Amino acid sequence: MKDKIKETVNNITSLDNILMQAAQRRLDNLTKPLGSLGRLEELAKLIVGITGQESPVLKNKVIFTLAADHGVTEEGVSFYPKEVTAQMVYNFLSGGAAINVLARHVGARVIVVDMGVASTVIARSECDEAIPKKHDCFAPSGLAMTNSFKNKKIALGTKNMARGAAMSREEAVKSIEAGIDILEEEFSRGVDIIGTGEMGIGNTTAASAITAVFTKKLVDNLTGRGAGLDNQGLQNKIEIIKKVLKVNNPNPNDPIDVLAKVGGFEIGGLAGIILAAASRKIPVVIDGFISGAAALIAYHIEPKSKDYMIAAHCSVERGHRIILEHIGLKPLLDLNMRLGEGTGGCLGINLAEASVNILTQMATFKSAGVSERK
Amino acid sequence: MKDKIKETVNNITSLDNILMQAAQRRLDNLTKPLGSLGRLEELAKLIVGITGQESPVLKNKVIFTLAADHGVTEEGVSFYPKEVTAQMVYNFLSGGAAINVLARHVGARVIVVDMGVASTVIARSECDEAIPKKHDCFAPSGLAMTNSFKNKKIALGTKNMARGAAMSREEAVKSIEAGIDILEEEFSRGVDIIGTGEMGIGNTTAASAITAVFTKKLVDNLTGRGAGLDNQGLQNKIEIIKKVLKVNNPNPNDPIDVLAKVGGFEIGGLAGIILAAASRKIPVVIDGFISGAAALIAYHIEPKSKDYMIAAHCSVERGHRIILEHIGLKPLLDLNMRLGEGTGGCLGINLAEASVNILTQMATFKSAGVSERK
Repeated sequence: MKDKIKETVNNITSLDNILMQAAQRRLDNLTKPLGSLGRLEELAKLIVGITGQESPVLKNKVIFTLAADHGVTEEGVSFYPKEVTAQMVYNFLSGGAAINVLARHVGARVIVVDMGVASTVIARSECDEAIPKKHDCFAPSGLAMTNSFKNKKIALGTKNMARGAAMSREEAVKSIEAGIDILEEEFSRGVDIIGTGEMGIGNTTAASAITAVFTKKLVDNLTGRGAGLDNQGLQNKIEIIKKVLKVNNPNPNDPIDVLAKVGGFEIGGLAGIILAAASRKIPVVIDGFISGAAALIAYHIEPKSKDYMIAAHCSVERGHRIILEHIGLKPLLDLNMRLGEGTGGCLGINLAEASVNILTQMATFKSAGVSERK
Repeated sequence: MKDKIKETVNNITSLDNILMQAAQRRLDNLTKPLGSLGRLEELAKLIVGITGQESPVLKNKVIFTLAADHGVTEEGVSFYPKEVTAQMVYNFLSGGAAINVLARHVGARVIVVDMGVASTVIARSECDEAIPKKHDCFAPSGLAMTNSFKNKKIALGTKNMARGAAMSREEAVKSIEAGIDILEEEFSRGVDIIGTGEMGIGNTTAASAITAVFTKKLVDNLTGRGAGLDNQGLQNKIEIIKKVLKVNNPNPNDPIDVLAKVGGFEIGGLAGIILAAASRKIPVVIDGFISGAAALIAYHIEPKSKDYMIAAHCSVERGHRIILEHIGLKPLLDLNMRLGEGTGGCLGINLAEASVNILTQMATFKSAGVSERK
């Protein structure tokens, strides 16, 4: 494993248990029946443990939406043409996608990253990282938002992994390192909580293959319809994933091997972001199935990273529940969503903010003069 | 049934199916895989049908937190002293309760109503309805908020329903009418979506009794620990509820009889609010178990009111799931919450707002120049 990844992983510590116990005592003294806010209370306590702050403030919220193309689309694993990846990047930058709407709703900014789109993305200059101080864009509706674009392109999409490795081992390392850089760049601007997101036609195929390698579950049971395959399309996708695994034989004890052989550039980038966030004590809200596959890679590189993960929701993509169980994460929401981009992550960030507000803004029985239970 | 209730009920119409179909077509053209936002899409479509607006805007959000005392607390059905009801009303008015924190988080204002607290509530003048134009209060933290207080007291708490009816039939009608008035007063100030909430030591006992009458399920299976009873306390509560039902024998075909015999003033008030909101085409986000009991009464007065209800979450209180199944509502969230006050309602309102933003702010495939599926 390369130095930058190793250094990041070495900085990941355990949660602050003493502060978490103090948070629990504080929660128990607030004017409500003991434990009556359920998972919101658990979440507040976890965020105290993650951040190492007694009274965390989740003001700077960032969604990272990483985009890349997948050579395996040659095998007909998606009904959408691969051009949609780049088209959606432009949609993200002009503020018209679901992630933009939900990020605005929860007060998060969106960092769109080209990790390996199969064409050159030309961002409008006002969104471009070349002008980092002025990265506000405007949505078509005229609503102000703070998007920005980063170019971290590793290659013009992965190779067709049904015929060999998706990328070289070097590219896999590079994609994780790019993710670390992305988080570090944002860290210096200030960030309190992040959400993961992605876009890449064909990427549920890569996520399914990764899930099969690490969890050892049957491909038939963890492969879903992605953006909307019919029965025949799903059957073809399952066969292709089986072929991908046979052709590449990834080593589950070597997460970078798995990423290189059956992964994607956006998945590697997200794994890097997750590890770097954990090393910086920043809560990471994991979105759906593809983000989950990135979390699997991060978790198998360093299991301690799990403590910094918050599972926003459980996707309709059937492999997602298998990932969450494997890592040991319990999703907050179950709203039949399967869009990706970071959309579930936004809703999770919103609940996280609600939870710390409960911890830090509620009155205690004593301060409010409310009688305690007999 | 009295005239005001009848008139309100007569104004409840069916959902606007034509607009809902148009909303579905619009959702299907947005830049995302078909149906991939799951329950958010269903919710947006429902809100279009409820409001009769093609592009609903949920700007004015209101939580109604109704408080009242329960004579049945004499039977030891709660470990908290009944004084807590009034103490919590003051906590609501000074902004230190969970409902204040979560309402601020989602941008809702809280209307606190004394429906039948067992002592005289003296609101600070700046919060009092006597000065309706200046109803901003400040939380202890200094955060600005827009609370207001209404006095609709029917009596100083209900009578002990283990020995006879909780209230007279006239009082039951009055409490529903008061709820209608509360909604109408707010309607004239502007309100786009509401959440129900309550406070009343002992009110899970009333809610359990109401649930038993309408759903005919066993008391043992629908009674929970409320604010935190132990096993012995729970067993006592179950016995008391059985006694309450035997002593009063409420008529399930006469919802006002049920409310009078085994209900509470805050429950009647919420039933009135729900009916009035439905008559005004305002989406009503139903909070937890006690709000659910109020929804049961509203539903049995006029089944069409169901179409206007959005179930925010499923409470830990076991009777709540039984209510939701009986009415036919599917909760959005399941976060192990059991606090009441309208806390779950706040989170539900937030999802409702997210859903209409998706409908009204996202780009279409055409407008964004994104290719559609093959």
